[in-house]
Amino acid sequence: MKKVGIIMGSDSDLPVVEKAMTTLGNLDIPYEVHVFSAHRTPEEAHNFTAKAREKGFGVIIGAAGKAAHLAGVLAASTCLPVIGLPIKSSTMDGLDSLLSTVQMPGGIPVATVAINGAENAALLAAQILAVEDEVLYQKLTLMRKDNKEKVLAKNRVVEEKFNK
Amino acid sequence: MKKVGIIMGSDSDLPVVEKAMTTLGNLDIPYEVHVFSAHRTPEEAHNFTAKAREKGFGVIIGAAGKAAHLAGVLAASTCLPVIGLPIKSSTMDGLDSLLSTVQMPGGIPVATVAINGAENAALLAAQILAVEDEVLYQKLTLMRKDNKEKVLAKNRVVEEKFNK
Amino acid sequence: MKKVGIIMGSDSDLPVVEKAMTTLGNLDIPYEVHVFSAHRTPEEAHNFTAKAREKGFGVIIGAAGKAAHLAGVLAASTCLPVIGLPIKSSTMDGLDSLLSTVQMPGGIPVATVAINGAENAALLAAQILAVEDEVLYQKLTLMRKDNKEKVLAKNRVVEEKFNK
Amino acid sequence: MKKVGIIMGSDSDLPVVEKAMTTLGNLDIPYEVHVFSAHRTPEEAHNFTAKAREKGFGVIIGAAGKAAHLAGVLAASTCLPVIGLPIKSSTMDGLDSLLSTVQMPGGIPVATVAINGAENAALLAAQILAVEDEVLYQKLTLMRKDNKEKVLAKNRVVEEKFNK
Amino acid sequence: MKKVGIIMGSDSDLPVVEKAMTTLGNLDIPYEVHVFSAHRTPEEAHNFTAKAREKGFGVIIGAAGKAAHLAGVLAASTCLPVIGLPIKSSTMDGLDSLLSTVQMPGGIPVATVAINGAENAALLAAQILAVEDEVLYQKLTLMRKDNKEKVLAKNRVVEEKFNK
Amino acid sequence: MKKVGIIMGSDSDLPVVEKAMTTLGNLDIPYEVHVFSAHRTPEEAHNFTAKAREKGFGVIIGAAGKAAHLAGVLAASTCLPVIGLPIKSSTMDGLDSLLSTVQMPGGIPVATVAINGAENAALLAAQILAVEDEVLYQKLTLMRKDNKEKVLAKNRVVEEKFNK
Amino acid sequence: MKKVGIIMGSDSDLPVVEKAMTTLGNLDIPYEVHVFSAHRTPEEAHNFTAKAREKGFGVIIGAAGKAAHLAGVLAASTCLPVIGLPIKSSTMDGLDSLLSTVQMPGGIPVATVAINGAENAALLAAQILAVEDEVLYQKLTLMRKDNKEKVLAKNRVVEEKFNK
Amino acid sequence: MKKVGIIMGSDSDLPVVEKAMTTLGNLDIPYEVHVFSAHRTPEEAHNFTAKAREKGFGVIIGAAGKAAHLAGVLAASTCLPVIGLPIKSSTMDGLDSLLSTVQMPGGIPVATVAINGAENAALLAAQILAVEDEVLYQKLTLMRKDNKEKVLAKNRVVEEKFNK
Repeated sequence: MKKVGIIMGSDSDLPVVEKAMTTLGNLDIPYEVHVFSAHRTPEEAHNFTAKAREKGFGVIIGAAGKAAHLAGVLAASTCLPVIGLPIKSSTMDGLDSLLSTVQMPGGIPVATVAINGAENAALLAAQILAVEDEVLYQKLTLMRKDNKEKVLAKNRVVEEKFNK
Repeated sequence: MKKVGIIMGSDSDLPVVEKAMTTLGNLDIPYEVHVFSAHRTPEEAHNFTAKAREKGFGVIIGAAGKAAHLAGVLAASTCLPVIGLPIKSSTMDGLDSLLSTVQMPGGIPVATVAINGAENAALLAAQILAVEDEVLYQKLTLMRKDNKEKVLAKNRVVEEKFNK
Repeated sequence: MKKVGIIMGSDSDLPVVEKAMTTLGNLDIPYEVHVFSAHRTPEEAHNFTAKAREKGFGVIIGAAGKAAHLAGVLAASTCLPVIGLPIKSSTMDGLDSLLSTVQMPGGIPVATVAINGAENAALLAAQILAVEDEVLYQKLTLMRKDNKEKVLAKNRVVEEKFNK
Repeated sequence: MKKVGIIMGSDSDLPVVEKAMTTLGNLDIPYEVHVFSAHRTPEEAHNFTAKAREKGFGVIIGAAGKAAHLAGVLAASTCLPVIGLPIKSSTMDGLDSLLSTVQMPGGIPVATVAINGAENAALLAAQILAVEDEVLYQKLTLMRKDNKEKVLAKNRVVEEKFNK
Repeated sequence: MKKVGIIMGSDSDLPVVEKAMTTLGNLDIPYEVHVFSAHRTPEEAHNFTAKAREKGFGVIIGAAGKAAHLAGVLAASTCLPVIGLPIKSSTMDGLDSLLSTVQMPGGIPVATVAINGAENAALLAAQILAVEDEVLYQKLTLMRKDNKEKVLAKNRVVEEKFNK
Repeated sequence: MKKVGIIMGSDSDLPVVEKAMTTLGNLDIPYEVHVFSAHRTPEEAHNFTAKAREKGFGVIIGAAGKAAHLAGVLAASTCLPVIGLPIKSSTMDGLDSLLSTVQMPGGIPVATVAINGAENAALLAAQILAVEDEVLYQKLTLMRKDNKEKVLAKNRVVEEKFNK
Repeated sequence: MKKVGIIMGSDSDLPVVEKAMTTLGNLDIPYEVHVFSAHRTPEEAHNFTAKAREKGFGVIIGAAGKAAHLAGVLAASTCLPVIGLPIKSSTMDGLDSLLSTVQMPGGIPVATVAINGAENAALLAAQILAVEDEVLYQKLTLMRKDNKEKVLAKNRVVEEKFNK
Repeated sequence: MKKVGIIMGSDSDLPVVEKAMTTLGNLDIPYEVHVFSAHRTPEEAHNFTAKAREKGFGVIIGAAGKAAHLAGVLAASTCLPVIGLPIKSSTMDGLDSLLSTVQMPGGIPVATVAINGAENAALLAAQILAVEDEVLYQKLTLMRKDNKEKVLAKNRVVEEKFNK
């Protein structure tokens, strides 16, 4: 199976990004994690991404905050789908990260998920890999069913507690 | 090749969405277009998406404005990747469409592109299909090179005009 | 008397939503509470709402955060009035929830109250039921008078403390 | 049948508000229209609303822009449901009108619809009146079906034009 | 000397508003404080303001949060200058309070100060009363000089600590 | 009678500011107009304001756009009340002008009116001058009554047209 | 004298950027203009900037809109000062461009000017070059004086027209 | 070497501003720190800046929050480059500080860095001084390399921990 590359702009993003790793791990999807900065180590970011396809990667996740250029910079170096994960920073409540990630100019798309939406970044990566992988698609469908069951269970708890 | 499903919430979104069709057409990627509203024809939206994988679709694009629930509603009915295309409406300059599309809760990702970014929605769909399609990947790489050439050509025009 | 249906998108919304239950309880208005997610259990959300009128419900409250599609999705399944209660989430200070709830397209209104305004969601439900229920209308009028008395009492405390 | 009171803060709001009148007219719901300003004619606004229930009104719509206090001021004078219709003004793209209308403090709810969402303000009023009026409820259900048919018809036009 | 009327919409605004009292006290300007809500005790708010001039008030301060209608409602009942003090509430970081207070329609101005700017509300009231009161004007000029001295003293501390 | 000083940061603000002149003229309040820039002619701005009181001014209006420092800079040079009139510029829809004008630090208040609210800036100046001027106060009260009559007349036109 | 490098992300930015050229030309500061895209021609952008100092450049201006990564990407390739010029695009009124340009992470500053502030970008470049260039500094001082004279002249026109 | 002048509007900005001092100290760049308020001590602010060049300063940093006029006021008094450092205040999350600092009118640029971006303000000052100072330029280049090494080291830690 193709791998997912998870690139974060700073190791301070790790507490958010770890949820993406957990989700991919639960789905048995192989991944690699790196700390590459769009501004401090642009060559490493470029080199990783430019060779990502031939090294067996199918999707890249770029996680960054503030003027979050990382996902866009990664997307400029590959035609693999790049998922942008905007990280909430200490000011502007994540709006800067979101707009810097999603408002890409024509020609270089970034598939942006919610601010701090690491689980969804991983699920989107999985869904992309599952387009041509029926086994993974069934896993995702099962995970959805599990999630549905969890909501239904919580619903029953709430119903029993509040509806007489 | 798998098809791209383009769903718009209203036919008033067509002038923006047509750019996505043109881009897919240029890449010889088959697509189908539908007008399904998350609120006015939710069953049609659900039915299309729930059977999309078995009908040969690989990616879905959902384009909508204002409280843009369409992409999220489509994403709830399939494990195929769903691309959210927020449409600028007559108030709020597209911020409502963007936030309604991108800020999805955990479990149901929507791959959001820029406000009115129809070309990028199509390119992202193509990049997703190209993960397992080397021919399409090469086409995308060529298109990037063409775009690069166009920027370089414009650069030369500007350089000649302004740098003596 | 017709019942109020309170639907929340996640049981994490409960601390806010409980204020709506307390308010309805104080007015002796019957209600039912459910956890239905617009994205994880859309069928349950739809089924509940589609049959709500025949099951004796008069108003529905939909509480959700982030890309808050719940109230809109409920409103698409019934012609009963649906009240949208935007829940403040961990990013964007509730602006995403508010815009996703209130900016509904023509045809499917959602009666939106303030971010985290659970008490007002319940009061609005009561006011709707009171349109044809003189007893309840009098209760609401009395509650207003009580609230007025409380403000006047607080005013007296402040006046005595600060105005000599 | 109970009447709908439509109050606008300025006659410059008329081009937007007229869509509410048309919608109510299509549903044969009686309505009255007035220009009362929360700040320039507060007594008239108060007097109308305070006696609205005894004069046969069931719902009030308050339409205003900028620091849009009108709906809140109307809501303070009655326990009838008051629908807030924020009008987009020449600056701030309607955000000021929306926040001034929807962010009401506990005790006095305003049922807010989208910026310039006059049609939905009328439909919400109709849905409120229909809670105890089966005939009107059926009319609304039919109108929904008509709207659905219109979307389906537009869908067919789009499908025929773009899907071969 | 004319008095300053300080009206707050809720006694929860007191921790902010007390700074205005302290400032007025320091300037020996007489004031009265009241808790009047634009929505829960509109008559009391109106009655106070309508008679404020004849009762010896020269300026009114209206402090409120969220959909902060209080200052505007006070301003509609008098031609005395009304100062709007927007209070930061639990959501929207005070932007709702600010826009609801400052974006008044033509004809009824509200002199708005910064979010939670209680000291400045009091100083503005004092400056208004000082237009025709040379003694108070001199006091304000002295207070400015004191403030200047305080900044200069802090400057010296910082200079001594950091500039060698 | 004391004069009103109207300072605008650029003569491009004149189309908005002229409404303030008209309003003051209608009230027979003397005024002077100047173009002083907080950044390009700071000395002129300072010199005018520092001597404004002794030259017979009672209130200053400062009108500026973008990073609108003018009103704050004027307020720093006098203890006369300074009214800030934020001018909508070509970007940011006036939000930059509003925040730059209203969010003043403790010690130096600016009485801010709505974005482009020139009429209200003039009325606020008049209300400030009227605190100690009964004749002017009566004029303002009459103007309010006239405005009320105009709203009532518009109301009658609307009522006659739409209510049968 | 060192040169100014003006890089724009797209030739559609030219109408704004030309004002920077005019300003530099008026100051006889040599400049070069290029169209390099952070995403479509990242190598050209990098190569230009990495060698800019040795080629005689003293300052770089990067102009871009939407998710405006250009200035940040240029700044990552050189220790020359990089000025960010956010260009207003068709949605979000330039807020996306501004935040993407200014909210740079620690280590790689971008000297950001106002949205569409091309004249100021050029003036800032000139001021940077003038730190060690007394002749240029005097030119800038004269230009300031000229601007001051223009404001004073406009002031006289306004004074003569409106102050009798 | 020319000195950097660091001006903060209030000593409460010191915890943020100290990071700028540390950064300049690490680069052996001489600096002076002052607390000058644009509104409370405008003359001191003006006097310092007007003589800054002749006193050996090459760059000025102005740090302020809320309606942050300081950097603009400093920039109006000198043709030295002025760096604006917007400080996050207790409301509006720094957006008011950012817009008040960056949105300067034509003629008086302020080189704005990120909200609370004190380290970058210092680095930008250093980069400006380094335009004509090869030794400092080399120091900055080394610092960049050090930063790059730190990112690479963190990358290795993350890679070893998470990639097996």
